[in-house]
Amino acid sequence: MQLFEIIAFDADDTLWHSERLYVAAQDKVEHLLAERYGVDGLEQALYRTEMRNLPLYGFGIKAFALSTIETAVRLTGGRIRGNDVGQIVGWVQEMLRAEVELLDGVKETVARLSRSHTLLVVTKGDLLDQERKLARSGIAHHFGAIEILSDKDEGRYRALLARHGVDARRFLMVGNSLRSDVLPVVALGGQAVYIPAEVTWAHEAVDAPGPEAGGYHQLSHMSLLPDLIAQIEKQL
Amino acid sequence: MQLFEIIAFDADDTLWHSERLYVAAQDKVEHLLAERYGVDGLEQALYRTEMRNLPLYGFGIKAFALSTIETAVRLTGGRIRGNDVGQIVGWVQEMLRAEVELLDGVKETVARLSRSHTLLVVTKGDLLDQERKLARSGIAHHFGAIEILSDKDEGRYRALLARHGVDARRFLMVGNSLRSDVLPVVALGGQAVYIPAEVTWAHEAVDAPGPEAGGYHQLSHMSLLPDLIAQIEKQL
Repeated sequence: MQLFEIIAFDADDTLWHSERLYVAAQDKVEHLLAERYGVDGLEQALYRTEMRNLPLYGFGIKAFALSTIETAVRLTGGRIRGNDVGQIVGWVQEMLRAEVELLDGVKETVARLSRSHTLLVVTKGDLLDQERKLARSGIAHHFGAIEILSDKDEGRYRALLARHGVDARRFLMVGNSLRSDVLPVVALGGQAVYIPAEVTWAHEAVDAPGPEAGGYHQLSHMSLLPDLIAQIEKQL
Repeated sequence: MQLFEIIAFDADDTLWHSERLYVAAQDKVEHLLAERYGVDGLEQALYRTEMRNLPLYGFGIKAFALSTIETAVRLTGGRIRGNDVGQIVGWVQEMLRAEVELLDGVKETVARLSRSHTLLVVTKGDLLDQERKLARSGIAHHFGAIEILSDKDEGRYRALLARHGVDARRFLMVGNSLRSDVLPVVALGGQAVYIPAEVTWAHEAVDAPGPEAGGYHQLSHMSLLPDLIAQIEKQL
């Protein structure tokens, strides 16, 4: 029997690489600040700025850009020159223009599951940036819809399930963030598969649910997903 | 008979003031550049930067912020100081924190129409910023949903109508932009009410549909909307 009416995938670092773009941009800014202004400590300072601005900016590359510029101004005591700010803006535009690189096993897995299930993309971040990445990914046709949320919390997952008329118990979410893809879904009575990424943003790193939490699965690789789903659905 | 299954409202400068925040911020940056760097011509240069960045950034305050910083760097030949860039970022944060001020007549009109029709908000811009403004507006409970689109073109309106299972002929869009709220809706066979705002961004200013185009109405004030709708529906 088919338990899951909808299988939803997170996008960044679940379907395609993303975090490494942020890390690379941050490294470049860090070197710029060190070489030209003798300043270090960008990583910690930027994270504090991002957390303070999160309720104002939300997620995504434009938010990262504005927080990076603000942090660079602060760390240099206002000495950073316009040219260097322009350089940072240029690196951000490169991030937005970057090729979409699917994670290993995604193409095959998504194609295979789309033959048996309705698939969604459920992500946060910049509206246009996420739409563009999906359009360029070469796998957009396998998904029934893309849902871009301002945050991935219980309330917004509940509203999403209501919009699609799906019971939480028949909803499976797949992603690389325990905080955004696993905990709120399991709390609502859905099932979630956690596939850790190589690099994960500190904000998304929380503890896994305890063994008493039902509906939580962990896989080391996307290509293992169809077998896991078959196994869950066979037990019915 | 009730013709319209859905009456949708644009948000910025239809439900609440918005463009004046952009104009005020731009004025402040213009003065800063003139006083400290002897530079003028921000308005035209910024508009060119915004148009070039539109496919990359999309709409909204964060996009405006990044394009403003880029333009200020260019106009000053890279001489703008970090302190002044920080000041620009501060003004942008004030825009995001600004109180939501409803346009005259909106509160009463929306309350009245919500008793007879399903109302939606259909807007573009930053996801989080638009959700926050609606939440703070005091009129959110009158709307069935908020739809935030990366752009308001025919394809995206068509997808929206499909999502809500509504025939274009039974859809009415109300807004202050001929380009975004009127032309694509009328082209799909829907009806649209254009209510010009005090100030409109150059990007949204296009010619009104010709008299041969059906489904196009213009009003000088939001409070005239219920009577217009009653009149259209009485003719059935």
